[in-house]
Amino acid sequence: MKFCSTCGSQVSYRIPEGDSLHRYVCENCGTIHYQNPKVIVGSIPIWEGKILLCKRAIEPRKGYWTLPAGFLENRETVEEGASRETLEEANAQIRILRLHTVYSIPHISQVYMFFLAELTDGKFDVSPESEEVRLFFPNEIPWEELAFASVTYALKKYTEENEIPESGVHLGSLSGERKKKNED
Amino acid sequence: MKFCSTCGSQVSYRIPEGDSLHRYVCENCGTIHYQNPKVIVGSIPIWEGKILLCKRAIEPRKGYWTLPAGFLENRETVEEGASRETLEEANAQIRILRLHTVYSIPHISQVYMFFLAELTDGKFDVSPESEEVRLFFPNEIPWEELAFASVTYALKKYTEENEIPESGVHLGSLSGERKKKNED
Repeated sequence: MKFCSTCGSQVSYRIPEGDSLHRYVCENCGTIHYQNPKVIVGSIPIWEGKILLCKRAIEPRKGYWTLPAGFLENRETVEEGASRETLEEANAQIRILRLHTVYSIPHISQVYMFFLAELTDGKFDVSPESEEVRLFFPNEIPWEELAFASVTYALKKYTEENEIPESGVHLGSLSGERKKKNED
Repeated sequence: MKFCSTCGSQVSYRIPEGDSLHRYVCENCGTIHYQNPKVIVGSIPIWEGKILLCKRAIEPRKGYWTLPAGFLENRETVEEGASRETLEEANAQIRILRLHTVYSIPHISQVYMFFLAELTDGKFDVSPESEEVRLFFPNEIPWEELAFASVTYALKKYTEENEIPESGVHLGSLSGERKKKNED
């Protein structure tokens, strides 16, 4: 950020009075430009014991498999966002069962939320974002060809049914140190 | 948003190619300025059967009671954010037990996440953001003086122990229609 989106003046990067973190501040109009993490919402769509995965048709991680997911948009609930992304990426309608995974990736300021869901009618199809959409039995998951650490984490927890935490929600995070090249 | 934060030119508001939603787009440098919901992280801090609440010393909702919570910052996990906010607002150290509530407020593009937690040593104190910090037994909660609908929801679910969902996490949302004046 170089310019103020409110008045167009150049911004400075400093700790505002009463704050403890550096922010982009407009010295002309006084606007403080807060920047915060983004939420990625998605689903683990289940049909007849199989998991629906999408092969990415776009970058990043084109050609790798993922759960349908994308950025939460303004003016939608997290459940609405997860359903919308599943429809957009896999042309699949879902019924959300419960929140399954919350996964923070602090070094890129992202929080993933995956919902366990059922396909409502078993229908799905490719989309501009997914060159292939397929159902996989748990023992067929292409672990080496998954697109993102968050997806690997959610699928690993889903397949480890003996490790359900008290709350049912798996809380995970990817530390910067463990970050792999090209991953997330 | 009126000006591009990258180059300072005026932005237009239109649907970019390949997208389905209106975005602020810089026709000069091509930057698309995505705007997404913000996450508010907080805790339900418990000590000897009582719940720690903070009376807000600042607007909005100055003088009303709230759970310690605030905006998730870049480069932190949701759990780190919840602990930091509890320390900042109530001078209290916590041990997080589990995710308790996820509450969407779509009309203002916010997602609240409250973690059930224990105070580590029972200590707490006022802060620049909280003019009073107190422990309440569940039957002492000042329901009519709570600051936000998200806090009311989380505390209501906490006190309704007979209504624990399968996942343990309470998923709620405030629809625009149900929005009350001055609330959230």
